Amino acid sequence: MTGSVIIAGLGPGAEGMVTPEVSAALAQATDVVGYFPYVARVAPREGLVLHGSDNRVEVDRASHALQMAAEGRRVVVVSSGDPGVFAMASAVFEALEAGPREWRGLDIRVLPGITAMLAAAAAAGAPLGHDFCAINLSDNLKPWDLVERRLRLAAQADFAMAFYNPRSASRPHQFARTLDILREECGPDRLILFARAVSTPDQALRWERLGDATPEMADMRTMVIVGNSQTRAIEGTKIVYTPRSA
Amino acid sequence: MTGSVIIAGLGPGAEGMVTPEVSAALAQATDVVGYFPYVARVAPREGLVLHGSDNRVEVDRASHALQMAAEGRRVVVVSSGDPGVFAMASAVFEALEAGPREWRGLDIRVLPGITAMLAAAAAAGAPLGHDFCAINLSDNLKPWDLVERRLRLAAQADFAMAFYNPRSASRPHQFARTLDILREECGPDRLILFARAVSTPDQALRWERLGDATPEMADMRTMVIVGNSQTRAIEGTKIVYTPRSA
Repeated sequence: MTGSVIIAGLGPGAEGMVTPEVSAALAQATDVVGYFPYVARVAPREGLVLHGSDNRVEVDRASHALQMAAEGRRVVVVSSGDPGVFAMASAVFEALEAGPREWRGLDIRVLPGITAMLAAAAAAGAPLGHDFCAINLSDNLKPWDLVERRLRLAAQADFAMAFYNPRSASRPHQFARTLDILREECGPDRLILFARAVSTPDQALRWERLGDATPEMADMRTMVIVGNSQTRAIEGTKIVYTPRSA
Repeated sequence: MTGSVIIAGLGPGAEGMVTPEVSAALAQATDVVGYFPYVARVAPREGLVLHGSDNRVEVDRASHALQMAAEGRRVVVVSSGDPGVFAMASAVFEALEAGPREWRGLDIRVLPGITAMLAAAAAAGAPLGHDFCAINLSDNLKPWDLVERRLRLAAQADFAMAFYNPRSASRPHQFARTLDILREECGPDRLILFARAVSTPDQALRWERLGDATPEMADMRTMVIVGNSQTRAIEGTKIVYTPRSA
């Protein structure tokens, strides 16, 4: 088999954050597969087939990509951010493991990208400048109890925390619950960042204290970062950072 | 003041992982500041002054960068990986906070990069495909007790874990202690990745079970990733990944 699947991260939105190796992979592809808005970021050209699909069909999409590679196509599966962080890489490997044995001989590679939490942190200063964790707040694929347990242990470990998928129309109450847990564990003065649409023309950053944070400050385009106990704002600037000694 | 400081991430080593916005910033710089081996990655040119400095002088280096910007220079501070992850961004902000008040009016920006854990994860499959944490195992700037506490809580939260600076000549025993704690908390069958010099010609990846892992498998050029309880290898491939439902 000569086909391949490259799982590539497009970064958070800005073209200046797409790595050259990802651009090169897209230039060589015969097929690009992904969620509609990410596929829309790839320029059409002669000889390239764009396969946009809906959200929540990740494993179907991944199987389609693997099947096309098995037929000899050069397929690029696109994710926003980094494909290995709450994105398509794990979905492709789930499909690979569940699929026909011959898929395991395919050339499959993951090309990293700038993930949303690091773009948000950079735009805000350096709130993830010391030990930190990343948690997907969606309970589509895991029990909510596990999310609550991880939140409490992460707070007790004094990690800075980055939250992906904080809030959606179908899960309006969970982010409110998240804020309650964080206030219990970290107190009202802890800094929390709401970073919306980072690196795009719609970018909006907002720092609050946990005591003043409300669920409406986040939506599905928002990356939420909570500082650790040492995270601080620099007076006279918009910079928030976590010291290296935290 | 018209000077600026851009704190830029060069990624883990491969030129194909340097973002276009970082390349553009370097092309506009009058001065590049950083640890010698990272400054050595920047091509010399007319009008560009390269200021390489030794390790462990991060705040001096940061103050020098801010001082040059205050004098009107366009300074780029380079880090490997991402500057906001155990790198120069927090050091610059510590120097900014401690320095002359007028520095706070400078144009200071952070440009994210591909951090080592995400490049290592991509090279190995998708071991960070679900909730995870990043811990700096060096105790140069924090008490070792805090590292141990974070390790145990992270294991109890069933996070996948990425370890930066796992081992150095001056701290030979701590990574051995780390492995002991992980075996206690996670058992001998948990997967652990040693990813050395990722994305460079020296790249070497090695997966082990915790029960078989030894301290000598890591050095200062090694990124260590420990899977969560669901992390698995795909038989017949070299791929290790964490399912999305973990």
